[in-house]
Amino acid sequence: MEELTDTPVLLLDRDRLDGNILRMREKLAPFNVTLRPHVKTNKCLEVTERFFADGRGPITVSTLREADFFFAAGFTDILYAVGISPNKFAHAARLLEQGADLKLVLDNIESARLLAEFACSSGQAFEVLLEVDCDGHRSGIAPQSTLLVEIAHLLSHSGVRVSGVMTHAGNSYDSRSIAEIEAYARQERAAVVEAAQLLNEAGFDLSIISIGSTPTALFTQDLSGITEVRAGVFAFFDLVMAGLGVCDVQDIAVSVLTTVIGHQPEKGWIIVDAGWMALSRDRGTAKQRVDQGYGIVCDLSGQPIGDLIVTAVNQEHGIISSRSGNPEAVLVLPVGTQLRILPNHACATAAQHSGYHVLTEGRHLGYWPRFAGW
Amino acid sequence: MEELTDTPVLLLDRDRLDGNILRMREKLAPFNVTLRPHVKTNKCLEVTERFFADGRGPITVSTLREADFFFAAGFTDILYAVGISPNKFAHAARLLEQGADLKLVLDNIESARLLAEFACSSGQAFEVLLEVDCDGHRSGIAPQSTLLVEIAHLLSHSGVRVSGVMTHAGNSYDSRSIAEIEAYARQERAAVVEAAQLLNEAGFDLSIISIGSTPTALFTQDLSGITEVRAGVFAFFDLVMAGLGVCDVQDIAVSVLTTVIGHQPEKGWIIVDAGWMALSRDRGTAKQRVDQGYGIVCDLSGQPIGDLIVTAVNQEHGIISSRSGNPEAVLVLPVGTQLRILPNHACATAAQHSGYHVLTEGRHLGYWPRFAGW
Repeated sequence: MEELTDTPVLLLDRDRLDGNILRMREKLAPFNVTLRPHVKTNKCLEVTERFFADGRGPITVSTLREADFFFAAGFTDILYAVGISPNKFAHAARLLEQGADLKLVLDNIESARLLAEFACSSGQAFEVLLEVDCDGHRSGIAPQSTLLVEIAHLLSHSGVRVSGVMTHAGNSYDSRSIAEIEAYARQERAAVVEAAQLLNEAGFDLSIISIGSTPTALFTQDLSGITEVRAGVFAFFDLVMAGLGVCDVQDIAVSVLTTVIGHQPEKGWIIVDAGWMALSRDRGTAKQRVDQGYGIVCDLSGQPIGDLIVTAVNQEHGIISSRSGNPEAVLVLPVGTQLRILPNHACATAAQHSGYHVLTEGRHLGYWPRFAGW
Repeated sequence: MEELTDTPVLLLDRDRLDGNILRMREKLAPFNVTLRPHVKTNKCLEVTERFFADGRGPITVSTLREADFFFAAGFTDILYAVGISPNKFAHAARLLEQGADLKLVLDNIESARLLAEFACSSGQAFEVLLEVDCDGHRSGIAPQSTLLVEIAHLLSHSGVRVSGVMTHAGNSYDSRSIAEIEAYARQERAAVVEAAQLLNEAGFDLSIISIGSTPTALFTQDLSGITEVRAGVFAFFDLVMAGLGVCDVQDIAVSVLTTVIGHQPEKGWIIVDAGWMALSRDRGTAKQRVDQGYGIVCDLSGQPIGDLIVTAVNQEHGIISSRSGNPEAVLVLPVGTQLRILPNHACATAAQHSGYHVLTEGRHLGYWPRFAGW
């Protein structure tokens, strides 16, 4: 990798990526559900293409920019999984006019009323999934709430098609055991199936019953009543996922290549050129059993070096030290040494970079660009 | 601002920007020092131009990409303020060949030896500032260390010009009072002046004695022996600076425009479309007296609304709640309402965006692009 001199840069191990995708495919295979990968983690055409053996399958997006980008690249079945607000109706309508099979999400009567009005005045045929709250994590309507039916009636009376329900077990990221992840998976499935039943009894024929989070998707034991699974970070994995027991550190497909620029020997510090600009400020492992600082330090082959982690960051400086406080551990890495840092949160770290330097079997394969923005 | 529909977007109040720059200029005027603004905060030509009444003054950069960009835009006097490592020698040499007056920084004998070797073999006339550690914050050589002289001799014997010393009072960001900032300012000045004296006695004639941090620059009372001041965040300010007492909340020039997308009324939550992707994961105020969460919530005119802050973020969702826990405070902001979030850390939040939507006197003036990467 001698050509990667302008460190820090983001590396992507394509072999690990492919292995992680295969694992999810194999996990879901017995359940007869559709995988609708969340592309917010990768924001990259070349990565997203690897989710699908052939063609362009259904995807989940977190921004309309992602929808624009992937639609232009031939993906048509797109779920925008953030509650729609009126300022974005026109943008969504443009995508529909262009031929996108775009599905919107909402969880409240105000948004529904505004969308219904816009649909009437614009004549645009919107399709909506109602968002269900399975764990009190963030957004969504309680699964037993008659508000679901009220909103569905309001929308359908204005020609908006209510095609399904969706939920996200965000709290599964805070699990302390695999048993707890399994419990969140049951809760996630139960919530959305209950909501679908309520709507079904009110006369709504739903074609999409959608759940999704990487931990629950990989440890679910029952997907009866579910039609599709959304997940994103499983393709890359990260230290938060490893801390949950969802993957091994050796499965993490993204890392930041950095260079040693100095030392503070008496403190046991190695200074590198990867700060928060390259690693992100994400400290997702801080609340886990093992706090990985700003990331685990590996050699160029991706093997962790002793118990070294990034313990502090400034914008373009990272401070590496030994977790056990052994100052001698750091002296073996002279100025100029290149290291790889495994990230706390792949979505956040990858977002700090304009693309991936892709490796396969240790060789540099090429550069896959990312996009950003809204 | 009705055209800004694709929220979240980054706003920049040009009037506040100009006021903040004027304040720094007026503060430094009596001291007869050069202001060498750090452009890592803004990474934008239009912002950087406003630091200088006319022409292209000296700047500080945190990446060689910044050096490339600003040199191409006509800035020649550039200090790259992160310790140079051998993988970047060739890039730095290219800039020198193109005519940049590029100054490098280093703080250890290994880097010095490698640079000396490269200088000999390439024939390139490098210029170096030695980095001094004034507060144990990060990098640098102790100001009384004879290592300074040893390195200076090593470099100058190989034709590398040692033109100065520099330090950064990074610990001033953790101050608990203005008196403490003033003490850090004294310490910062004293360290670099002591180092310069040591080198002077060894026969080195230094033209640059450089210090810099926004808090110390704005509260210094003595800059004798100092030739230049570096600072960056002062142009934008942020909640960390306001928490230090360095600025007022009303001075903060950057904010993130976001839209209400839903509520969880029983929890007192407003859900908005600005998550960590738009706000960054920076939690710089967490260790201050007042923890501002992920930012203070303002109306469209920039006035804070009650005691609302962003209390939690996911990638594209923010949760706003009342600091006092009053759930009724949140119900006055219906879906579609646009809000402005003041950031913890301007450098980190701005880095999440591709440019600034610039306002003056409340009007939308235009779009100023940012760049990113290394």
